Amino acid sequence: MDWLNLPIAQPDAKARRAAEDRQQNLTKPPGALGRLESLAIELAALQGTPLPKADRVHVTVFAADHGVVAEGVSAFPQAVTTEMIRNFARGGAAISVLARTLDATLEVVDLGTVTDPGPLDGVLSKRIAPGTENFAEGPAMSEAELNAALEAGRAAVLRAKQAGAQIFIGGEMGIGNTTAATALLCALQDCDPANVSGPGTGLDAAGVARKAITVRRALARHKPGITSAREALRCLGGFEIAALVGSYIACAQSRFVAIVDGFVAGSAALCAERLCPGVRPWLFFSHTSTEPGHRVILAALNAEPILDLQMRLGEASGAAVSVPILRLACALHNGMATFAEAGVSKKSQ
Amino acid sequence: MDWLNLPIAQPDAKARRAAEDRQQNLTKPPGALGRLESLAIELAALQGTPLPKADRVHVTVFAADHGVVAEGVSAFPQAVTTEMIRNFARGGAAISVLARTLDATLEVVDLGTVTDPGPLDGVLSKRIAPGTENFAEGPAMSEAELNAALEAGRAAVLRAKQAGAQIFIGGEMGIGNTTAATALLCALQDCDPANVSGPGTGLDAAGVARKAITVRRALARHKPGITSAREALRCLGGFEIAALVGSYIACAQSRFVAIVDGFVAGSAALCAERLCPGVRPWLFFSHTSTEPGHRVILAALNAEPILDLQMRLGEASGAAVSVPILRLACALHNGMATFAEAGVSKKSQ
Repeated sequence: MDWLNLPIAQPDAKARRAAEDRQQNLTKPPGALGRLESLAIELAALQGTPLPKADRVHVTVFAADHGVVAEGVSAFPQAVTTEMIRNFARGGAAISVLARTLDATLEVVDLGTVTDPGPLDGVLSKRIAPGTENFAEGPAMSEAELNAALEAGRAAVLRAKQAGAQIFIGGEMGIGNTTAATALLCALQDCDPANVSGPGTGLDAAGVARKAITVRRALARHKPGITSAREALRCLGGFEIAALVGSYIACAQSRFVAIVDGFVAGSAALCAERLCPGVRPWLFFSHTSTEPGHRVILAALNAEPILDLQMRLGEASGAAVSVPILRLACALHNGMATFAEAGVSKKSQ
Repeated sequence: MDWLNLPIAQPDAKARRAAEDRQQNLTKPPGALGRLESLAIELAALQGTPLPKADRVHVTVFAADHGVVAEGVSAFPQAVTTEMIRNFARGGAAISVLARTLDATLEVVDLGTVTDPGPLDGVLSKRIAPGTENFAEGPAMSEAELNAALEAGRAAVLRAKQAGAQIFIGGEMGIGNTTAATALLCALQDCDPANVSGPGTGLDAAGVARKAITVRRALARHKPGITSAREALRCLGGFEIAALVGSYIACAQSRFVAIVDGFVAGSAALCAERLCPGVRPWLFFSHTSTEPGHRVILAALNAEPILDLQMRLGEASGAAVSVPILRLACALHNGMATFAEAGVSKKSQ
């Protein structure tokens, strides 16, 4: 796993200044486009150009199953992970519709579900194991499994970059994965599981309480041995979460902007920043999830999401919905006339 | 002005129920798409179909000058109104870029600026007067001027409807018009001008104080005679604000959804609802402006905007930026597979 030690890139200060100057001269009161201005400026700094772009967007959805589902922590049966992989392939899932509407490329990577969905168009089979182990009873993954999952994330980023994408979006599908994300968050941020466990796909109050108890049990078992973000991820994470961690690190190493989805992807972003400090600037945060732990993650990463639409679906759906905002920010930044070009008077007071 | 008394349409309860049922059966946990679900359902009820659309969007920007600018209430010189009309026509303004990027039709209606811009492509000359009167000294408009402005708004809606638009967006351009919107808001909601006066295009603290004092003076002069929303609009509004009022009423009369922009458009929406109760359901609120009075308007109309991007530009820019969110909401609502179609298991707990 030498690649984890590759250097993290730095945003381009010169491109940022050029973009800031441009914003000051466009025909509008300075600052009047709010976040649309700062998003264009940030994107310019990350892409190393005064005229940033968000036209070519690649979405990879990592899918995997979770042993911890045995503890009764999900409102949907485990078979849904594989069923949803088929739904992605057939184009009927939310992210399928969003990718199509946004003209984004979409691939699904099967990192290991209980039932192998078999060969499917648009689905890469990179099965590590038929799901993780139940982390309430032992580590979720072995060292080798963790490395394979991290590497799968990096490989997706390199494919997207190779294909000419300007923006990378990682998504996840895995029944039980909000429990893994909650456990990972609690280990990384020393939170009380009762404060950050949420309904996920739709648990009732008793289900949320069971989830919190499961996470507490897992932390009691593993926490003494967890001395690094890497070990937290191995013991408590999932294949798709580790792949997202690998993807964010690979983005930051290769000057590639990633848009982070909601709670589960957010837990991966936090873990990526802890594993490789300096990843954070390469991440745009798309939306605020209704999962209670998400605000803790956003605060820890000093992240202000673009949207708050009360979404909690995952699959990269929130990240996808933020793409048009970035595109409009770029269109305004690159396409508006300056005061001089338009012969419009500047501020007088 | 008989048309103001035409009946307001009712949202279609049957289409709403059909859309709600559909959302319950799409392959996602119920509610997991948050606002995207409720926006699609609302749009279905307003358009009277279980499968709503936001593809064909029409934007009309109403432009006019304001006599109250003589009180030193704007950070930009008054010439900018006409200069910006030219910038709209040449395609260099924010709304020009947004309309182009969104493939929306854009027209500009000149309702009266101090300097006539002359004939311009894409600009309808419907000049009522070379700007309103200074409402700190007397009524902004005569009865006839108010009627002409209201009617100009209605005419734009009827043109858009005739051309097959599915969504109407009204925008405004007029140096000084946040002062008019503030005065109108204060009259309609009985607010203290000191609490709702903001920087507009970029006033400093002294400028904001001057604006609040100007509004207070105007209210002291006019308020005793203001016994209706109509009279508040005539005494304190502007041609473009009255046109927006007329447009929202015409939308509600003709089963046509409008997306309301920020503070100035919001003041018109509030006035429209007071003039013709029942307009409110036909309005989507796009974003929360940084102008302090906007939150008062949103609360008065029980409106929760789709976006909060710290914008404060006007021109319909915030409304335009919300269009892709509505489009994605429709794409998901109309294009996702149901559980039965996809063979995905439903919630088990």
